[in-house]
Amino acid sequence: MVKIGYGGDYNAEQWPAPVWDQDHKLFGEAHIDTLTVGVFTWGLTQPGPDVYDFTVLDRIVERAAAEGRRICLATGTGAHPAWLAKRHPEVTRTDFEGRKHRYGQRHNSCPSSPVFRRLSTEMARRLAQRYGGNPAVIAWHVGNEYGGACYCDLCADGFRGWLRRRYGTLEALNAAWYTTFWSHTFTGWDQIEPPSALTEHWRGPDHTAFPGITLDYLRFMSDAMLANYRDEKAAIRESDPHTPVTTNFMGLYRPIDYHRWAPHLDFASWDNYPPDDRSPARMALAHDLIRGLKDGQPFWLMEQTPSVTACRDVNPLKRPGVMRLWSWQAVAHGADAVLFFQMRAGRGASEKYHGAVIGHAGRADTRVFREVAALGAELSALGGVTLGARTPARVALLFDWDSWWALEISDGPSRLVRYLDVVTAYHRALWTLGADLDVIGVTAPLDDYDVVVAPALHMVKGDLADRLSAVAFRGGSVLTTFLSGRVDENDNAFLTDVPGPLGTLLGIRVDEWDAREPVYVNRVRVGDATFQSRLLFELVLPQGAEVVGRYEEDWYAGTAAITRNDFGAGHGWYVGAGLDCAGVTWVVRQVLRRHGLLGPYPDLG
Amino acid sequence: MVKIGYGGDYNAEQWPAPVWDQDHKLFGEAHIDTLTVGVFTWGLTQPGPDVYDFTVLDRIVERAAAEGRRICLATGTGAHPAWLAKRHPEVTRTDFEGRKHRYGQRHNSCPSSPVFRRLSTEMARRLAQRYGGNPAVIAWHVGNEYGGACYCDLCADGFRGWLRRRYGTLEALNAAWYTTFWSHTFTGWDQIEPPSALTEHWRGPDHTAFPGITLDYLRFMSDAMLANYRDEKAAIRESDPHTPVTTNFMGLYRPIDYHRWAPHLDFASWDNYPPDDRSPARMALAHDLIRGLKDGQPFWLMEQTPSVTACRDVNPLKRPGVMRLWSWQAVAHGADAVLFFQMRAGRGASEKYHGAVIGHAGRADTRVFREVAALGAELSALGGVTLGARTPARVALLFDWDSWWALEISDGPSRLVRYLDVVTAYHRALWTLGADLDVIGVTAPLDDYDVVVAPALHMVKGDLADRLSAVAFRGGSVLTTFLSGRVDENDNAFLTDVPGPLGTLLGIRVDEWDAREPVYVNRVRVGDATFQSRLLFELVLPQGAEVVGRYEEDWYAGTAAITRNDFGAGHGWYVGAGLDCAGVTWVVRQVLRRHGLLGPYPDLG
Amino acid sequence: MVKIGYGGDYNAEQWPAPVWDQDHKLFGEAHIDTLTVGVFTWGLTQPGPDVYDFTVLDRIVERAAAEGRRICLATGTGAHPAWLAKRHPEVTRTDFEGRKHRYGQRHNSCPSSPVFRRLSTEMARRLAQRYGGNPAVIAWHVGNEYGGACYCDLCADGFRGWLRRRYGTLEALNAAWYTTFWSHTFTGWDQIEPPSALTEHWRGPDHTAFPGITLDYLRFMSDAMLANYRDEKAAIRESDPHTPVTTNFMGLYRPIDYHRWAPHLDFASWDNYPPDDRSPARMALAHDLIRGLKDGQPFWLMEQTPSVTACRDVNPLKRPGVMRLWSWQAVAHGADAVLFFQMRAGRGASEKYHGAVIGHAGRADTRVFREVAALGAELSALGGVTLGARTPARVALLFDWDSWWALEISDGPSRLVRYLDVVTAYHRALWTLGADLDVIGVTAPLDDYDVVVAPALHMVKGDLADRLSAVAFRGGSVLTTFLSGRVDENDNAFLTDVPGPLGTLLGIRVDEWDAREPVYVNRVRVGDATFQSRLLFELVLPQGAEVVGRYEEDWYAGTAAITRNDFGAGHGWYVGAGLDCAGVTWVVRQVLRRHGLLGPYPDLG
Ligand SMILES: [Zn+2]
Ligand SMILES: [Zn+2]
Ligand SMILES: [Zn+2]
Repeated sequence: MVKIGYGGDYNAEQWPAPVWDQDHKLFGEAHIDTLTVGVFTWGLTQPGPDVYDFTVLDRIVERAAAEGRRICLATGTGAHPAWLAKRHPEVTRTDFEGRKHRYGQRHNSCPSSPVFRRLSTEMARRLAQRYGGNPAVIAWHVGNEYGGACYCDLCADGFRGWLRRRYGTLEALNAAWYTTFWSHTFTGWDQIEPPSALTEHWRGPDHTAFPGITLDYLRFMSDAMLANYRDEKAAIRESDPHTPVTTNFMGLYRPIDYHRWAPHLDFASWDNYPPDDRSPARMALAHDLIRGLKDGQPFWLMEQTPSVTACRDVNPLKRPGVMRLWSWQAVAHGADAVLFFQMRAGRGASEKYHGAVIGHAGRADTRVFREVAALGAELSALGGVTLGARTPARVALLFDWDSWWALEISDGPSRLVRYLDVVTAYHRALWTLGADLDVIGVTAPLDDYDVVVAPALHMVKGDLADRLSAVAFRGGSVLTTFLSGRVDENDNAFLTDVPGPLGTLLGIRVDEWDAREPVYVNRVRVGDATFQSRLLFELVLPQGAEVVGRYEEDWYAGTAAITRNDFGAGHGWYVGAGLDCAGVTWVVRQVLRRHGLLGPYPDLG
Repeated sequence: MVKIGYGGDYNAEQWPAPVWDQDHKLFGEAHIDTLTVGVFTWGLTQPGPDVYDFTVLDRIVERAAAEGRRICLATGTGAHPAWLAKRHPEVTRTDFEGRKHRYGQRHNSCPSSPVFRRLSTEMARRLAQRYGGNPAVIAWHVGNEYGGACYCDLCADGFRGWLRRRYGTLEALNAAWYTTFWSHTFTGWDQIEPPSALTEHWRGPDHTAFPGITLDYLRFMSDAMLANYRDEKAAIRESDPHTPVTTNFMGLYRPIDYHRWAPHLDFASWDNYPPDDRSPARMALAHDLIRGLKDGQPFWLMEQTPSVTACRDVNPLKRPGVMRLWSWQAVAHGADAVLFFQMRAGRGASEKYHGAVIGHAGRADTRVFREVAALGAELSALGGVTLGARTPARVALLFDWDSWWALEISDGPSRLVRYLDVVTAYHRALWTLGADLDVIGVTAPLDDYDVVVAPALHMVKGDLADRLSAVAFRGGSVLTTFLSGRVDENDNAFLTDVPGPLGTLLGIRVDEWDAREPVYVNRVRVGDATFQSRLLFELVLPQGAEVVGRYEEDWYAGTAAITRNDFGAGHGWYVGAGLDCAGVTWVVRQVLRRHGLLGPYPDLG
Repeated sequence: MVKIGYGGDYNAEQWPAPVWDQDHKLFGEAHIDTLTVGVFTWGLTQPGPDVYDFTVLDRIVERAAAEGRRICLATGTGAHPAWLAKRHPEVTRTDFEGRKHRYGQRHNSCPSSPVFRRLSTEMARRLAQRYGGNPAVIAWHVGNEYGGACYCDLCADGFRGWLRRRYGTLEALNAAWYTTFWSHTFTGWDQIEPPSALTEHWRGPDHTAFPGITLDYLRFMSDAMLANYRDEKAAIRESDPHTPVTTNFMGLYRPIDYHRWAPHLDFASWDNYPPDDRSPARMALAHDLIRGLKDGQPFWLMEQTPSVTACRDVNPLKRPGVMRLWSWQAVAHGADAVLFFQMRAGRGASEKYHGAVIGHAGRADTRVFREVAALGAELSALGGVTLGARTPARVALLFDWDSWWALEISDGPSRLVRYLDVVTAYHRALWTLGADLDVIGVTAPLDDYDVVVAPALHMVKGDLADRLSAVAFRGGSVLTTFLSGRVDENDNAFLTDVPGPLGTLLGIRVDEWDAREPVYVNRVRVGDATFQSRLLFELVLPQGAEVVGRYEEDWYAGTAAITRNDFGAGHGWYVGAGLDCAGVTWVVRQVLRRHGLLGPYPDLG
């Protein structure tokens, strides 16, 4: 059967055989055809240093296959076993505070630990040898929700090696990190420590004396975990050359640069746990981001709750119809699978109150189960018509982990300006106005787009400025905002007017900027309309650009807040103030209208 | 003289002899007859490893006895001496963050330290040998305000031993903790670590990946300190077979399960430091809880301030008459002693601004001293008429540390639902309506009660469900609320409909529940009245029960929020929503009225 | 040229030669004549253990001298080099949480480290040998913004030595710290640990079980850093006997007792970074405090930003004219130099967005540069007329680090009463009313003052009470407030009526006091006027004093809140309540008026 995969995480190892019977019967009733199994089975499949035991996993896989279900098989390395931590303390992490952890939780492995790398890879190898040929296994699920960070001495060594490869010489490194500042010149690689509460950070992970070090550590940690993923994938490929391999991303997740990971996944997948009921735009952005990771290729919705989460302080219930609505939203954005966490609620531990398709009492007559079953029927009826579909977009939204990191670890101008807030504001406007759009990284080709929106593009690397200029030059529109074009790839300020290499495209210059508490509002007038702006107010000095909006308050009243520059056959737009939602929508509307890219209901927003 | 004991903590060792003269003169003026001495004297009585020196304590005891005052003699082990921490670093604690402490503060001893256990016991032994026969010594005060926690390796060993005794095998332990989850199966006892910020806790002491581990550590730590208390008591009993032994509890104090401690105290006592002037109901609950620890036997109010505290951010002054009012409230709830902390204000250290009967200037003409003296005269006039009195109650309120712990260390449904908030809401209603009540543990006999109120009875252990059913069956009323009947003694969910073993008694089933921020209100209608509910909204499905109250809002408007089930000759009540004060009072009023247990002024509340 | 120095921190080592050319050209345009150089150059001048290299610093100094600019030469020891931390881990600090730091940040040296002390001193020695004779070098700038704290074992040893010198015997120390409390008697010097999160502190640096220990550690740490400063100064003096030596203070900075440091500076200087635009009074206080450190001698404004800071969450822009206004305020308060941080904005690291005279683009046509240049012209026009000027004040405001520390590390009566809030309230009234005033320490002579205002003079040491009485006796006015006269120099309460040794002067006694949350207001009536009071309400019992203001609310309505006592030919005023701004101004106005010390516009405030 070729259709959207439907099912979810199934931790059958937690249950005795009679429960399995009940489960598969209920799966049948709910049109469940896809089960993710083995996500946390390392302790089960390797109960001791030299002991591998696949008995239970064999049964789970065999049973699912026998029932005609498809299996997304996890390598189970998202949490290591207790014996491993006891025998090899190196596998546990050291946290940002410098505290060496002992055994506990999940996501608990040091990515640089040779022991962890060897044994997790060996587990993937053995699983692939055993199950790689099983036709029920349609995908590999490596690890789980990679993330967090480690600051141990093994990671320090790994970081130094990563830096040697990146910079070659200490001279280059000192220049990149601007270490003449505060007497920080490094004269030996071993002097470099992971940036943490014990070294450069004066208040939490975002407050660093040296953003250059911190930025590189973020990059290194993302790469170190990517190496873990790649280790396991390579081991799988030794015996299973074709079954696609993925890992579950977490949407708008800061610690991992998914753009750098994406080439190594055969398809992307992600876990959708919005904080509340009022997140349709934010979910749309995340779907678009994930789809954009693989050039628009369909992805899997790997996890969502059918009802409630458990880890939040307050865990609201999804109202009737909400799960269905959000599932269809995923499909409409490119999902080829709609999966739940989880199929059956665990009895104990920290997720016992997390929602599940089947609750503790094993009932089929609950509202939640009925809605799951109803959606299952709908997806079955749909069949394969949406599989592999593409979104034809003429609008691109740039999303850049480096800019995210650099912006938020900077001292000044304002900690209140958050990258995601800016991006979601511009995305929401595009979404509200009905534009088809792709969310892409800063190295993706821009040739197919008429409109490129790059909110808070703090860091401008490589040939990006040229490529953005080319979009405008050939008649397109480029829209960017305050705090764009500030730093190079090492987070050093451009020694030119702000906005650095974007200045020519935008036809402006910014010498100074004001940051204020949220209670302070400066109105911005555009034609007959006035919008509020908050938090950041750049004083935009036109150098050829036309002034579109002007501040109405304070000593810079009457000066430019929004500009549009003619560049070639197109436009370079700049929004220098933290406009409110209506203001952002107004600007975006002007841009889309010029290219005829407003959606069918542009006045709904 | 047989009367209510009146006096308090007297740290005479801080003062020279002339001050003692002044003190005892003022004690006489204030009708002070009872002094608690020696609470922090370990450094004084054992100034070095092999040196004991009771000279000063002898003088204090002799002087008090000579003045005709009764002595509550402390063992002084609530804080260890500086030399002990230096010589035996094992005696200091390791905190939740994994930080080994050095010498400082009080409540500073690792309960598992063999050195601490040996020396604290030896101190109690020697004190009993020396003062056990002194007729002025009417009670022993072991340690002081036991509490806090330690996470050191000695405690880790102690925990493992405690677990072996509890579970016997690792198989049983793994089942209890549900360790198949997140690959946590323990294959050796030494793999188990105290649950802390370095292991299972992802955010503070209440956010744990494995509530099973955390719950057991709470139980273990309470037991470990109980062992400290029992060590000292046993040492006292070697030479003093009769003088009653106690330690001062702290009322509604989460870390110690006072029900497990109570059998080992000859009488209960507690320290009453309400956070503000508006706490009469809360204090009543605490008094009732303490009285209930020993089957209704009178207790001592071991500490209260005559005027102000010092440790709070803001320390308000007790207004004229408040100290008297609260003292009489204690007596009315069963106190056989009314004692202050402290008799004379210390000059230095952290309690120098804590209120005292005698201030720094040693005056008798202060308002506070005059009020103390006036109450002393009243208590003297009262004589012994209330001593040993009992409260004849037909209403029981269940209070359960295991439910408290399990509820508050759970992920989901809501961190905002706090055990004490629920318990105090129902207690306040009973108190407002004037019902005589006992606050009892879940293993106490229920035979004497017509009404049993069990708010948020999250964990249902042993035969409790049967005994509650029996209350209703014979015509009584059982009232419980949301989040009751959820887990067994290992904090694993019952594999049945919610509320688990209480389902038959209550005649309902709960498949789902909604949690919301405090700003969200759902009204609940009962007859003509409407009440507000907040935080948690269980969707109650009657399975025989009568619907008493219904939600008025949201997609579940019209469904049951409050139910009453006929069970035998009695009733099982269930309140599924976080009702406001008026709503709780309405429900409790119905229950009490049926049994004629409303107090004389039921409309005052 | 003799005039107010104008310029600032110039980190030329961060830039290549062509930039230097541009810089000096722009300095000329802006009338910059003074450059602070070498503040963070340790890594540059000592790139390895036995290697000194002054090549770059030579060029910077030579170039500045050649351009005719004056040089404030820093010793560069405010941050140590990376190789030093690697080679000698002892040089890094251990923080309040007990965490040993690795290399990072600045202000990162343990003040007790012999290695740090030896090498930092040697650096100062070599710099003085090399540049001491250079006529362009007009001042030495030792270290930078001394502050923070270290809790390492070296500091523990240093603390023990400091205590031995202070107390001589453990008996005296135990008495001072009141160690009979909580069994804390120390029987060996080695039992004493730095008070930290691992020892006496139960919640942060201000919540200590033993304020005596904590107070002495604050004193010790201030002294330990003073020793660092003195080491370097002595090394400078070996070869440069005359050039004045300073270090840059931070105004109202709690960790360092500037009064104890002041005798060792040849002139005082400070860095002015007010939190917002609304700080003129607070800046005036800081200027007066700094001027008062050296008996009224002029000081330098060592740092201010021309535009924005970077380290705050929100960094507002100085509006046009604000930098000029604040610079003139500094001059009017006694500044003989007006300097910026910094001359050119750094490209990278944590201050890349901190404002500078010259921005990243190197422009002279920015608003900020133009304002800097305009002020430079004004200061040049002014010439030397204000240099060395004195403020003839008849009003003294007492400022006391010991009282600040003792008050804020106390448990009770209220954590909300902050020393600076009280001091700034009374200073603001004096400032509003136009009084010329000196801010002085508690050991400064009082003979020249008619009015002495001592807000929250918590600790009364030595002969201070006598000297204050003498002021009143000869006809002056002494004004003090709640929480004054509470403790002796060891933070032990006086064993007399509150306010201790001030009682006779003030003619009152205080037995009790109420503390309340900020929402609670008690009005205080004085004549026809009524003012609000908050936070703390002392119940003042007149013992000869006249009642000036009375509470209007609560059970103590009608009792005294403000009193004035005739003492000799003068007055002792006491304000027992946390009066609002208008109330404080009313009281201060009465005091000033009597002495004819109201300024020319006393009704402006
Ligand atoms: Zn690591
Ligand atoms: Zn321990
Ligand atoms: Zn140190």
